[in-house]
Amino acid sequence: MKKYENFSKWFDDLLLNAEIMDNRYPIKGFAVYKEWGAKIARKIIEMLEKKLEETGHVPMFFPVAISEETFKKEAEHIKGFTSEVFWITHAGDRKLKKRMLLRPTSETAMYPMFSQWIRSHADLPLKIFQSVFVYRYETKATRPLLRMREFLWNEAHTAHRSWEEAEEQVKEAIGIYDEVFKNLGLSYYILRRPDFDKFAGADYSIAFDAWNPDGRVNQIGTVHNLGENFSRAFNITYEDIGGMQRYVVQTCYGFGISRVIAAIIAQHGDDHGLVLPPEIAPVQVVVIPIPYKNLEDEIEKYSRRVYEKIVSAGFRTRIDETDRTPGEKYYYWEMFGVPIRVEVGPRDLKENQVTICERVNLERRTVPLEEAPRAIMEEFRKIEKKLRERSISTLKEMTINARDIEALKEAIKSKKIARVCWCGKIECAERIREESGGEIRGYRVDIEENPEYTCIICGKKAEKVVYVAKAY
Amino acid sequence: MKKYENFSKWFDDLLLNAEIMDNRYPIKGFAVYKEWGAKIARKIIEMLEKKLEETGHVPMFFPVAISEETFKKEAEHIKGFTSEVFWITHAGDRKLKKRMLLRPTSETAMYPMFSQWIRSHADLPLKIFQSVFVYRYETKATRPLLRMREFLWNEAHTAHRSWEEAEEQVKEAIGIYDEVFKNLGLSYYILRRPDFDKFAGADYSIAFDAWNPDGRVNQIGTVHNLGENFSRAFNITYEDIGGMQRYVVQTCYGFGISRVIAAIIAQHGDDHGLVLPPEIAPVQVVVIPIPYKNLEDEIEKYSRRVYEKIVSAGFRTRIDETDRTPGEKYYYWEMFGVPIRVEVGPRDLKENQVTICERVNLERRTVPLEEAPRAIMEEFRKIEKKLRERSISTLKEMTINARDIEALKEAIKSKKIARVCWCGKIECAERIREESGGEIRGYRVDIEENPEYTCIICGKKAEKVVYVAKAY
Repeated sequence: MKKYENFSKWFDDLLLNAEIMDNRYPIKGFAVYKEWGAKIARKIIEMLEKKLEETGHVPMFFPVAISEETFKKEAEHIKGFTSEVFWITHAGDRKLKKRMLLRPTSETAMYPMFSQWIRSHADLPLKIFQSVFVYRYETKATRPLLRMREFLWNEAHTAHRSWEEAEEQVKEAIGIYDEVFKNLGLSYYILRRPDFDKFAGADYSIAFDAWNPDGRVNQIGTVHNLGENFSRAFNITYEDIGGMQRYVVQTCYGFGISRVIAAIIAQHGDDHGLVLPPEIAPVQVVVIPIPYKNLEDEIEKYSRRVYEKIVSAGFRTRIDETDRTPGEKYYYWEMFGVPIRVEVGPRDLKENQVTICERVNLERRTVPLEEAPRAIMEEFRKIEKKLRERSISTLKEMTINARDIEALKEAIKSKKIARVCWCGKIECAERIREESGGEIRGYRVDIEENPEYTCIICGKKAEKVVYVAKAY
Repeated sequence: MKKYENFSKWFDDLLLNAEIMDNRYPIKGFAVYKEWGAKIARKIIEMLEKKLEETGHVPMFFPVAISEETFKKEAEHIKGFTSEVFWITHAGDRKLKKRMLLRPTSETAMYPMFSQWIRSHADLPLKIFQSVFVYRYETKATRPLLRMREFLWNEAHTAHRSWEEAEEQVKEAIGIYDEVFKNLGLSYYILRRPDFDKFAGADYSIAFDAWNPDGRVNQIGTVHNLGENFSRAFNITYEDIGGMQRYVVQTCYGFGISRVIAAIIAQHGDDHGLVLPPEIAPVQVVVIPIPYKNLEDEIEKYSRRVYEKIVSAGFRTRIDETDRTPGEKYYYWEMFGVPIRVEVGPRDLKENQVTICERVNLERRTVPLEEAPRAIMEEFRKIEKKLRERSISTLKEMTINARDIEALKEAIKSKKIARVCWCGKIECAERIREESGGEIRGYRVDIEENPEYTCIICGKKAEKVVYVAKAY
C-alpha cells in the first residue's frame, strides 16, 4: 500500500483492511462503521465532549426529523440546504399530511425549542451539544468518511445576550476545537471563509482545513457567528436586566467526527497502515511472544507476565497468542495502528526485559520489565510529538506562495495549497477557481497576514492573503 | 405531584420539570432529551455497553436508511413492520429512484453485511451492538419515553454455528439485561411471549415486562432466537470444520433505553420527584449550605471544604450557592432525584461534621467530615437496596392470581397484573383480551410454574401459567 503513489486506493483499502468502515452498504453515501472505526469515533467523541462539558456546554438529543414548516423559517438557510435534504413523505402505506426532512444540521430542530426555553437574561448563555449523524444528499461523488450522505458529527449551539458575548463564544469554540485537533496531532489552517462561502444563515464562518496527501483540503470543523439571523426568524427573545425584550445572538459550531477520522488516517498513516495517536487507539499496546526452540513455555509464561504488568498499569492492551508467525503479527497490528508493540523473545526472557517498538518510525529499544509502563507512557508522549511535528512540516511543505496565475495553476496541479493575494472581489475569486481548479478557502484568523503583493488576478490592491486549494 | 393519584399527569409534569424530556417538539412522537434525560441515557448506555464488551460484543454503527429491497427479504419481518415504517422518497426536489426507509430495527441493515463478512467457522460467533435511535410509525396514542415514533435503544445481533450456541447466547443476553436492570433497582417479569406475539422473524421471543404504577406493563428489553429465518433470507452461510456450507443461527436483542428511563422514573419516583440510582445520577451528591446569622462566611467556607472533600473522593457533586432558601434548594434537588443531599449548618460547622440526607426516605444522619465519603458510599449501597426491595414488593403486590374471568376483569380494572392458567389456544387468548382488556404477556422463563387449575376461559387442561396485563 503506497500512500503517496495512489492516495485514493491506499485510503479505501485501509478503511476496509483496518476495519474502519465498510463502504459496500447497499445505499450510496451510507456506510458501516466497523469495530475499529466505531471505537475510534467513540474515543474522539469522548475527548471532545469532555472539553465541551468543562466549558459549560450540556448534552441533549434532538430528533432527526424536522418539519418542513420550521425548516423554511430562515431564508438563507433554506437556500443553502434545500437542494440536499432527504424528505420523509410516507409512513406505512399512508402519505403523511406534512412531510418532514432528515436533519442536514440541527438549527431548525433546535431553535423552535430555544424560543420556548429562553425567557430572561438568567436563562443565558444557553450552550448545548449533541453527537449525531446528519444527512445531506451530496450530488458530487461520495467518498467514505470524507463525503458521505450520512455522516457523524458533533454540533454545538449557543445563545447569548449580545454580539460581544457571541464573539467570545466563537473564540472559545475555536480554542476547544484547536486543542482537540492538536491533541490528535493534526495540522490545518484556521480560515475565515469568504462571504460567498459562509454557512447558510451565518454572519460569518470560520473553518479548520486539514491537509490531505492528495492536496484536497478536508474541512474538519467550522464555527459560525449567526448574529440575530435565526433568533429573528424563530423569535428567540429574552427580557434583559432593564426589562426590554431583545433577540438573542447565536453561534453554532460543528466538529466533523467522520472527517477527523479521515484526517487522522490521511495525515498519520503510512505504507504499513494506520498510525493512531495513543489517546484514541482502541488497542494501545500489543504484546507479541517470539517463540524460541525449547523455550516455548517459558516465553509464553513470561509474555503473560508482561501483559499483566502492562494491563494493570491501565493501558488498553492485547496479547497476540494466535498461530501466526511473529512477522505476520507485526504486519497485522501495524496495519491497525497500535502505537506500541512489545516483543518478548528469548533474550528478553533471560534479561527480564522487554523490547518496545513504536509505530511511527518502527524504532526499537529494550527496557527492564519493571520500567515498561513508564517507558510506554514516555513513548506515547514521543509518538504524539512526532506525529504533530511531522504533520506540521508536511503542511508547511505543501503550502506554496503563488505570485501569478501560472504559479497558482502549477501549485494546484501539483497537489499543493497556494497562498495568494486577493482583492476581495467575487469576480477574481471565480477566475481563480476557473483557471486553477482550486477554491479560495479564506484568510487566517490565528495570525494576521498582510498582503505583500497586488491581487493575483486583477493586479489591484490586495485585501487579504488567502489560501487556495481543492477541497473535499 | 401525586404519583398514585394521577400517574399520567405526574409522569408528564416530572419529565418537563426535571428536564428529562420536552415533548413540545413540533412533530408528534418525536421529542427532545434535555440535559438530565440525555445524561441519564448516557450513563445507562455506559453500564450496558460495558457488560456487552466484557462478553465479547463489539460496537459498530449501521446506517439509519435501509433499502426497500433488503427490507423485503424476510417474509415475516415485512409483515410485522411494513405498516409502521417511515419512507424517504425524495431528496432535494428529485424523486429517488429507489425509496428507502428509516430503520425500525436493524436486522435488514446489518444482515446483508453479515453475508459478506462471514465466510468460515473461524468468523463465528459474530457479536455486535449499537446504541441508536429507531423509528416506528406508532398509530396508537404516543407517550413520551414510553411510546415514541423515535426512540433510543441498544440492539445487539449475533451469528453462531449452531442452534445450541444460539441458545447459549440467548441465555447470556438475558443474564446481561437482568444484571443491568437489577443494578438499576428495577423489577419485572421475564416472559416468553406467546407465539402470536413474538418478534416478526423470530423463532421465539423473551421479554422483560416492568411494572408501572398505572398497571400497564412496560417492555424494557427483548431477546430473540432468530433460528435460520434471516440467514436463509440473506444467505448468510459459513464453511464448517468439515468443509460443508451451513446457514448461521442468529439471535438479536434490544434494550429500550427510553423505556428503561421511563421505568426508573415510574418505579422509583415519588411525590417529590425523581429518585435516581446513584450509578446513573448525573449529580450524585449536592452540598447545601444553611446560612446562619453571623456565621455566613464560616458556613460558606466550610461548605466549600465539604464540597472539595466529596468531589475529590470521585463523586459527581454540586454545591448550590444560589440565592434560594435552603428549603427551596431541597425541593429543587429532590425533584432532580439527587441521591444524597449534604446539609451544612452551624452545628455541622461547630462539630466538624456534615448532615447527610438520603433521597429514598429522606432520612438524615450526621457523620464526621472525615468519614463523609465512606458514609456516602454506604448510603449509595443502601439506596440501591431500598429501591430494589421496594420495587420488588410493589411488583408482588400488583400481581394477583385470577381463577375465573370475573377475577381477571377485576384485576385488570384495578390496575393489576393477573396470573392465570391458559390452555395455549389463540381463541382463549383473544377472549381474555376482549373480556378483560389485558393481554397475555407470556410465561416465566426464570422459574418453572405449573398450572394448578384449568384454562380460565375454556376450562380444559391448562398448558401454562401466564401473566395478563395491559401494556404500553
